[in-house]
Order: sequence, then structure tokens, then C-alpha cells
Amino acid sequence: MAVYTEVPAEELARFVARYGVGTLVMAKGIAEGVSNSNYLLETTGGRFILTLYERRIEASELPWFLGLMTHLADAGLPVPRPMPDQDGRVLQRLCGRDAALITWLPGVSVTEPTLAQCRAAGEALAQLHLAGAGYPPTRPNQLGLPFARDAAAALGYRLDVLEPGLFALVQSALARLDGGWPEALPRGIIHADLFPDNVLFLGDCISGLIDFYFAAEDWFAYDLAVLRVAWSFTADGARFLGDRDAALRIGYESVRLLAEAEVAALPLLSELACLRFLLTRALDHFEESAGALVQRKDPLAFARRLRHIRCHG
Amino acid sequence: MAVYTEVPAEELARFVARYGVGTLVMAKGIAEGVSNSNYLLETTGGRFILTLYERRIEASELPWFLGLMTHLADAGLPVPRPMPDQDGRVLQRLCGRDAALITWLPGVSVTEPTLAQCRAAGEALAQLHLAGAGYPPTRPNQLGLPFARDAAAALGYRLDVLEPGLFALVQSALARLDGGWPEALPRGIIHADLFPDNVLFLGDCISGLIDFYFAAEDWFAYDLAVLRVAWSFTADGARFLGDRDAALRIGYESVRLLAEAEVAALPLLSELACLRFLLTRALDHFEESAGALVQRKDPLAFARRLRHIRCHG
Repeated sequence: MAVYTEVPAEELARFVARYGVGTLVMAKGIAEGVSNSNYLLETTGGRFILTLYERRIEASELPWFLGLMTHLADAGLPVPRPMPDQDGRVLQRLCGRDAALITWLPGVSVTEPTLAQCRAAGEALAQLHLAGAGYPPTRPNQLGLPFARDAAAALGYRLDVLEPGLFALVQSALARLDGGWPEALPRGIIHADLFPDNVLFLGDCISGLIDFYFAAEDWFAYDLAVLRVAWSFTADGARFLGDRDAALRIGYESVRLLAEAEVAALPLLSELACLRFLLTRALDHFEESAGALVQRKDPLAFARRLRHIRCHG
Repeated sequence: MAVYTEVPAEELARFVARYGVGTLVMAKGIAEGVSNSNYLLETTGGRFILTLYERRIEASELPWFLGLMTHLADAGLPVPRPMPDQDGRVLQRLCGRDAALITWLPGVSVTEPTLAQCRAAGEALAQLHLAGAGYPPTRPNQLGLPFARDAAAALGYRLDVLEPGLFALVQSALARLDGGWPEALPRGIIHADLFPDNVLFLGDCISGLIDFYFAAEDWFAYDLAVLRVAWSFTADGARFLGDRDAALRIGYESVRLLAEAEVAALPLLSELACLRFLLTRALDHFEESAGALVQRKDPLAFARRLRHIRCHG
């Protein structure tokens, strides 16, 4: 959560001049995103977020992500809209990085969502699922079950360094997933990372859905499983908050009814969602070189969630 | 340049409620300041900067700094104004830190100031010197010649680790300062750190003077010396830019004429200004524990400036 690439104000001024949105009034490096550099820019023509893509994002995938944001904004969702410059280009280069200017959205990210906010988040996820139809599903989810299998194998007993018994916990979840893997479920574009810090609220209303850089094509029910594990526990994963879980589901189904097979698959997919965050965090933990750029988060917060879901679904 | 203390949005919302400035619309942690945490907050009543004081700032001195900012804002300078809450308190506690809410000012900090911007910076410094009259001068400059002597002695030959011969360079500057130390010069409140990143511009007009946490009582000419070494060199100190130096001086003297003794002392005080930044940066470099919180800057950028000034004044 820092600014990794410092862009001089003069370069920022030249950069915004490409867009014909007036002159620069403010430029603040903001602590947002996991490993990109972000600036909040204000010009005489509006407010924008400038993102410089540092690493962890495949340059060839940027057009897909930016196109998706445009598609969803066109559909009326509160998604930041990538700005084309005066030559119509969305993807830019700045200070040796790929870069894009997107519209700013008001609102704040909550850490303790109210039930009304959970309900709104559920609704928004379902709206996103419906709105994604028509966008090319050419990006498969790279952090699904095959990833979990590979990551668990690569980490092996190093997981037990984080907590004794963690490798066995992961292995048993993988076995359940392999044994109970559902038949094909309804699928489409998913956000895949809709944590509270990727949702902006003004009061109980959602004013922004942000950070689409894990978006992909996968089962909708998996995305709802991510939402569950992200919102229905205390941040440390120690306590399940059933009323939040219910509010998320009610919100989601007020927009898109779940099929019976999706409801049945939700507990297992919630285990997969826990594995995904547990394992990427564990990989970050052991990846020396990541230290500088990646804010390390606690893998065990998702081990605790996994244990709860294993027992209670 | 990061946010060291993360304040949940709910706490921010409760915090701004103390001020009666409406409800929170945006909260962004911003990468600003050397070792404080800063948030850009927008409420329905305006925009503000929230600063949480991390370390390096003596809590007992905060009322003096905040009082100075109010004094200068009252005098009409573009200085952020500390906001009193509804009980009239300016200094607050938040997340275990001292904290203050100050008004936001528009503008951007330049890295390659134009001559018009240099001239404006010189004017603003002189206006600040005049406007400081009447504010209690109870904070002596703690980074003057005695500091330079002590820091050089404490660092000793470790300076040569940074660059062979650096200790001798520092010693010879100290000898010149001891030998040629001027009689009393005009004094008052100085900013003491008016680098380009502490000045906000809208075009060529100054819209903000910020970061008063090194302000103190000392000779005005020393503050002008700091301005010279900060603005009249390329950032790496490798090249002196005489036209910028002239513009700063013309701007300054358009508001406050320098006395003959001040003009005569300026080269020597510029050496002291170089020493001050060279030595604090060298101390940061060798202070292990500072690593996490302090963005390390290159001490040698000021060794290069010092060598130029030694030869050319």
C-alpha cells in the first residue's frame, strides 16, 4: 500500500494533457491497491485515478481488464471508466510502466459492513454477473481448483511452518473438492476479489466497485463464495457472522436467483475460496522477492475461515 | 512515503463528525510527508488533510506548529489551517496517535520549477518571514550549527563509508562556519525546509506552503540559504542552476530587502544548509531502526551542493 513509481508533477501534467480534461489542480499518490501505484488526480475537468501497473499483472491482459471496466460502466454499474485519450487510446505508457487513467468514484471502503451494506454488496455482485453477459469470456480464472492443487503441492509442508497441521487442513479440503466437484454451474464474468476494500459506499449505498484485476470467467457461485468468506467473518477469520452471510445471500438473490445446484455447491466453493486466499497469501509469505512490493497479509485468517466452513458449510 | 497507521473508514467518519463539517464522502491514504500518516478526506462540507503524527515529532511541540499554521493562515498566507473541533480542540488523538485535521489546499508540487515559480517561492518565503512576526519565537532551530557539529562528531569516519573524503569535506565546512560565523542577523520564524515538495503551485502561482514541522526561530538568511540549496540545483545536486538562484533572490527581495550583512553571510549559511541535509540524511542512513518509517534520501546530493557552494558561494 504505497506508491512505487513516483511521477513528477510535470509528467503528470503532460500526461493529463493527452486527455483534454483541463489542467492539473491536484495530484496525490494514494495508498491503494496491492501492488500498483495509484494517483488521485484532479483537473479543471474532473477527478481521476491514474494507475501505473507495477507487476503481478500480465501486460497482455490489461486491455481485457480495461475493456471489462468500460463494459460494466456502460451497463450502468458504478465501475470506474477507463478514459480514452484524444487519440482514443486507453492503455498508456508512463515512467516506464503501463498506465491508465480511470474516472474517480466517491465513497469509502468500510471495514465493519452493516447488514444493509452486506445486502447491497450481494445485490451489486449479482448485477455484475448479469452485466458481464456479452463481454468476451476469454480470461479463465487462474486461481481456481487447479491453482489450489498446484500451490498446495508447491508449498507442501512449508505450510506447517505457518501453523502445525495446515498442510493436512489444505489437503483434506482439496480431497473434498475433488470428491464433490459439482457438474457445470452457471458461469460468466466474475470479479473474484470483491472484498470490502473493493467496494465504495456512501452511507448504505454502493458508489463504487473497484479493482477488477482478478476478474475472469468462472462459475457465478464461486464469486458468491468469495463474497461470503470476504464479508461474513471478522477480518482475522476468528468469528463467523451469520447475519452478514444471510444479508449477502438475500441481496444476491434479490437480483439473480441461485439454481439448486449452486446452493448445493456453495459450501464446497466457499472452501475453495478460502484455499485461494490462504494459498496466495502463503506463497507471498515465502516469496522473498515479494517483500518490497506486496503488503503481506495473514494466511491463517483464511485457515480459520476454512475450518469454520468445513464444519458448518 | 506511505501510510503507517491505517484508520478504518468507520473511525474516520466518527472523527470528522467531531468537527461538524458534514459526512465523509472520500478517504484516501496519501503518500505525503516524511514520517507522518496522511489522509485526504472529503466531506459534504469540504476537503481536509488528516495527519497522524508517527514519530520524529515531539508531541509537546505540536501545539506550537499548529498555532504557527493558524497564525500564518490568519495573515493571509496560503498555509493549511488547523481545524478546531466543535469543542475548540485542534490537537486530537486517533488510533493511538496525536492527530490534527487541517484544510486542504489545491495545487501540485513541481520537481523542475520554472523561473517564474522560483521567483514566486522567493516571494512566499519573504512573506512568511514578515508574517511570522508576532508569533512566539519559543522554538529555537534544533538543526543549526551546533547540530551540525554534534552530528559530524557522532558520524565521524562513518561518513567516508558513504563517499571517501566526506568526513574531511564536512570538517572543512564546519571550520569555515566557525571561522566566519556572522554577527547577529535579522531573525524570526523560519520554515527551515521549504523544498519544492513543500510548495503547491497552480501554474506559476503558489497555492500552498506546507509541512511546517521543522519551523523554528532563526536567522531569515539561513532560511533563504535553505531555499537556495533546495531549488537551485538539480535534485541529485550535480548541477547548479544560476538562473533559478537569481530568480529566488529577486523574488525574495521584491518583498523583503536583504541587509548587507545577510547578503555577505549567504554563501556561508548555504554551506550550513547543505550540511544540515547531508548530516540528517547520513544519520538516517546509519540508523537501522529508521528503515521502516523513513524514506531514505541520498546524503551525497548535498555533498555535491556543498562542493559547488564552497567554490562559487
